[in-house]
Parts: sequence; C-alpha cells; structure tokens
Amino acid sequence: MISVRPAILCGGSGERLWPLSRQAKPKPFHALLSGRTIFEDTLLRCRGAGEGVAFSDPLVIAGAAIEAPVREGLTSAGITPAASVFEPVGRNTAPAAALAALLAQKQDGPDALVLIVSSDHHIAPVASFRETVAAAAPLAADGRIVVFGIPPTRPETGYGYIRKGEALGEGFSVAAFEEKPDADTAAQYLAAGDRYWNAGIFLFRADVLLSELARYEPEVLHAVRSALQADNHIDESAFAASPSVPLDIAVMERTRHAAMIPARFAWSDVGTWPSLADALDKDGDGNVLAGDVMAIDTTGSYLRGEGVTLTALGVEDLVLVATPDAVFVAPRERAHEVKQILTKMKSQDREDLL
Amino acid sequence: MISVRPAILCGGSGERLWPLSRQAKPKPFHALLSGRTIFEDTLLRCRGAGEGVAFSDPLVIAGAAIEAPVREGLTSAGITPAASVFEPVGRNTAPAAALAALLAQKQDGPDALVLIVSSDHHIAPVASFRETVAAAAPLAADGRIVVFGIPPTRPETGYGYIRKGEALGEGFSVAAFEEKPDADTAAQYLAAGDRYWNAGIFLFRADVLLSELARYEPEVLHAVRSALQADNHIDESAFAASPSVPLDIAVMERTRHAAMIPARFAWSDVGTWPSLADALDKDGDGNVLAGDVMAIDTTGSYLRGEGVTLTALGVEDLVLVATPDAVFVAPRERAHEVKQILTKMKSQDREDLL
Repeated sequence: MISVRPAILCGGSGERLWPLSRQAKPKPFHALLSGRTIFEDTLLRCRGAGEGVAFSDPLVIAGAAIEAPVREGLTSAGITPAASVFEPVGRNTAPAAALAALLAQKQDGPDALVLIVSSDHHIAPVASFRETVAAAAPLAADGRIVVFGIPPTRPETGYGYIRKGEALGEGFSVAAFEEKPDADTAAQYLAAGDRYWNAGIFLFRADVLLSELARYEPEVLHAVRSALQADNHIDESAFAASPSVPLDIAVMERTRHAAMIPARFAWSDVGTWPSLADALDKDGDGNVLAGDVMAIDTTGSYLRGEGVTLTALGVEDLVLVATPDAVFVAPRERAHEVKQILTKMKSQDREDLL
Repeated sequence: MISVRPAILCGGSGERLWPLSRQAKPKPFHALLSGRTIFEDTLLRCRGAGEGVAFSDPLVIAGAAIEAPVREGLTSAGITPAASVFEPVGRNTAPAAALAALLAQKQDGPDALVLIVSSDHHIAPVASFRETVAAAAPLAADGRIVVFGIPPTRPETGYGYIRKGEALGEGFSVAAFEEKPDADTAAQYLAAGDRYWNAGIFLFRADVLLSELARYEPEVLHAVRSALQADNHIDESAFAASPSVPLDIAVMERTRHAAMIPARFAWSDVGTWPSLADALDKDGDGNVLAGDVMAIDTTGSYLRGEGVTLTALGVEDLVLVATPDAVFVAPRERAHEVKQILTKMKSQDREDLL
C-alpha cells in the first residue's frame, strides 16, 4: 500500500452557483451534492487506507478570505490536517502546488507523494477514485507528474483537453495538452477517442515537482519558498511576488515527465446549476429538488430552497434557487449565464449580494 | 352634492396572492397596485367632496384577525374613521352590510346613504368612480338598493352576472342576478351585451336595506342588532348566531327594489397574480416588475421581490413572487392555481406559511 499526502486546494469562487455561492461562503462550503458540504465530501474522500492507497492527514491550501469556513469544515468533518495554509492573495495553482510540495516534504521527506485535488468537484464512487490514485502512484513514484484525465462524455468547450500518447504503466504518456476548444474542435476531440478532460487533479513526487518548477518557473518557487514561514504563515509581500500561473502552464505543458491516468470515477466540476443537476439523481419527473421545496406538475427542473420554502406549480425545465435575501431563476438551458446577473449587480454597486 | 357614508369591508383572505398575502396580513395590506396598500388606496378613493358626491368619514368593518393592519393602514393614510368595528367571526357580507347600515344611522339618521365597497379591489380612475356613485345616488335616495355593474371584457366564469332590465334614472332595473356561469354560458353573456359583472359594490339608504333584511333575513338583522354594542364592540356569541350569507343572496336576489348602475371606471378584484398583472402597466417587454427585481431577456412576466432581491434571466410568461420565507413560481397561465400549493401545505401542517 502506497502512502499519499493529499493537498486540497480551496480557491475558486463558484460564482456561477449564485445566489447560493457567495464570496464569503463559496461553492465548496455548501451541501450541494450530499448531506455534507463539497469540502467535507472532499476531505472524507481523501483519508484512511483502502483500495491500494493510504492517505495521510491532508494539507489544506486556501484563500485567506475563506479561512473561517475552511476551519468550520475541518471541524465538522472531524479532520485534523497535517497543515493548513492560507494564501493572502490568489496566485493560481502553480504556487499552491509548490506550497503543497514544500509542506509535504516537511511531513514525509523529499520524495513525498502529493495528490493535488480541488475542494469543489463531484467525484464518485470513492473506491474508484482511490483505485485511480493507486494506479497512478507507481508512475508518480517513478518520477512522473501524473495528471488525471476524465473520459469525455460530451463536446465540452469549457475544459482543457489531454491527448494521450503511448501506454505507460496503467496510464499513458501525454502527447499534448490542448486549450479549451471551440465547438467544432470539441466535437472532433470527442469523436477521436484519444482525448481526456483535464480536471486539475495531479499526483507527483514533491522533489520532482519542485525541480521542474525550478527549471520552468523559478520565480514561482522562489516566491513561495520565501513566503512560507516555519509556522506555516505565508508572508503576503513575498507570496504576492509570485507570477499568477496555473500548474498546467507552469509545468505540465513544458515538462518531459508528464503522464496521464484515465479516471475510473465519475467527475464533474459542478460549475453551473445545470451541471450540478446533471451530477445528481433525478426524481420520477426529472427534477432535482433540494432543501424545502414543494413542486406540483413540475418536470425537468432544479429547484433549491435554502432557508426559504420554495413552491412551484406547472413549471418545466427551470432552474430556481432561492435564499432568504436573493433568488435566481432561468430556463435550464440558460442558467449557466448567471454571470450576466452578477455583472449587472456589480455595475449597480450591489456587492452586498455577491 | 349628495353626502355618502362609505363602508369599507375588509374580509377576504386573498389566498390566491400567496405568498405575499398571508392570514395575518392579507391582500388589502400590501402595496400591490400603487405605492400605497390597496386598503389605503380604497380609503383615499372614498373621501372628500368632488364629482357630485361628498364622502363623509368612513365606516370600517373588518375581521378581528386583521385589526392591527387595519389600524396601521388608517394611520398611514391619515384617515380617522367615523367608526371601526371588528367582527369576531366571519359571517359573509349580509351581516357586514347590516352593521354598516346601523352604524351609518347613528351618524347620519335613518335615511343615511351607505356605499359598501371592498377593501381589496382595483378601481381607476378615482374621478370616474365618484361620478358613478353620484349617478347612483338619486336611485338610492329614491329607495333603490343599487348594485354597481362592471361591463364585462372577457367571458369570465369567476364572477356572478347581472342582467339589466329597463332604464331607470342613469341606471337600470335588474332583470336577474345570475350565478357564476360555465364557460359556454359566460361566452353567451358576453355576446348578449346586456350583462354586467357583480363587483359587490352597493349604494343604498340604510332604512331601506334594514327593512329588506327584516323581510328576507330577519335572523341576520336580529343577530347584528343584538351583537352591536354602544361602544361599537361586537358581542361574539350574538354575532355568531347570524346565518353566514352574502348580501346578494340575502337581499339582492329577492328584493323588488334592486337597481344597477353601470360602472364608468376600470375594475378588477385582483384576485390572482395574473389578474393583478393585467391591471398594471407593463414595461416594454410586457413585464410587471415589482420590488427589488433584476430581469435580463425576460418577457411577459410578473416578478415581485418583497424583502428579497429577485433576479431572472431568459424567462417568459412566468409569475414569480419571492418573500424572505416563501417563494412561488408558476407559468402565467397557471398561476391562478396557487391554492393547490396552499392545500398541500395545510395537509403537511405548514400553517406557519399561510
């Protein structure tokens, strides 16, 4: 059994899940997929031993603005992290991965195996997730930076793609990382059968990642090393000096050590209300009803009443999310455009609702 | 100029305007049609002199459960009523009209002219309303019980109809009162051109009404006389002994003194969200947006955010009413069926929301 140090990144705002997701309590801190918050689901998925992998206590790397809900979630899930660090400013995932590697080395030595996961994804079942980590572990131990590839199920234009190369252990080498495609290209990718979505999940040896960062983005590594203090506090001005860059661009697209492991689990970034609804079981009328909802003659809809009783009569294919101070409604096929509402709110100085 | 004593009846619950209208604060006490509540609009419509009629201070006859919002509304409108009485139990409009007649006689003597109006109707413009009252006044002074008839604009099945007889002053005698029709009959009524909706607005001499009640429903009159005390308190057990009966059935369908005056004003009972929307001006997209609402690419909809920010994107022909504890959504053509929701709530012991 291989020991793996999970590093949970809590970054993105989940804006498109407004009005539930707010700046002070973004997406990971809501019970959207189960009775627990997505953050707690993530913590519980990455602990204990089984399916060929033993997770040690997690590293948690989060924005300073969400320290309170992060600490609440840890307590609520009964998890004591090996370390929690709070970034005073956001610098994307390359600095966060560097922090994870440095913290893991403190715990486990230079060749610590680090699993980078996001705090706000839907992943199921847990056993298949663990099996995928176990399958990737020998590649990572062997010096590969392994990215998890999700077999695509639709011509999605919102994700980056990975084109697989030749077989490598239980995975593949990476022929290319490909940017978010247009619709035609996405359809070609889907038809080709050799593409995978890049879900931002990585397994690597800490020393390998740090050496590749030193080679390709030395400013990131320097800033992070300078910023991380003995007590895991992060010095703001040192950290802010890092370039803001995703791990994919900083390392993955350049390194000769990339590998890809096909995910054996169902995955969604649940980035929008419709994609969240897609990830959940429907009732007999094709609805997902969450919270305090009463629906009559209603079909194909996602209805969420959070601290509010939501009632619907005769509606079809609607997304309606109600909270005590804000409500959002849209047809299902347009609910992903909620940012139009947020943009308008900002222009009207309604930041109180964001 | 004829002096008229308005008697404002605050009874019905306005259930179909849920979730705004609640048992403790029903329809008349919400600002649905203007910046003031419907009750205040009604009070202000029935005061002062002009267009041939001088309204004296109103009588207010309300259910005991809504005494608080009634008193608030009077204060807010700056109206001191001639008398306010609060019925300990509801017994429909015949006893309420009897109360109005008795109270008016105390103020104005036996032949007081009493105008019975509901507290929760849309009526506009005010001048046309007053002109209609002035036109009805000679008939009432002459001993007729005058019902206001609304020229029908659609084959409505939700109202009773009045068939006009021969001309009588500026109005007509009544050939027949007709029950709520089925759809075919309503279409025939509309085509015939001799029917009017019965809007429950009456003008009569107090002595005439009381004598007709004594003739046709003596138990109502006896109960009301026994119940009404010198300080305008209503004794519960005496009042509860009255039959529960509408004025139309108790008197209008039986009396030989009925007359009908065609209304010169626009009228709606604003009983449902769609009928409320119909009574209001639309924006360029055919929407009525009330309260704190942000709508993008939205057409033909009634959206109300009451103590909540309501946002909509890309919706069509929807009714959505949001309050801090309850939300209702339905397609416009089904929004009148909101009672289905209320029935289900009652069956689930959710009386807190009614």
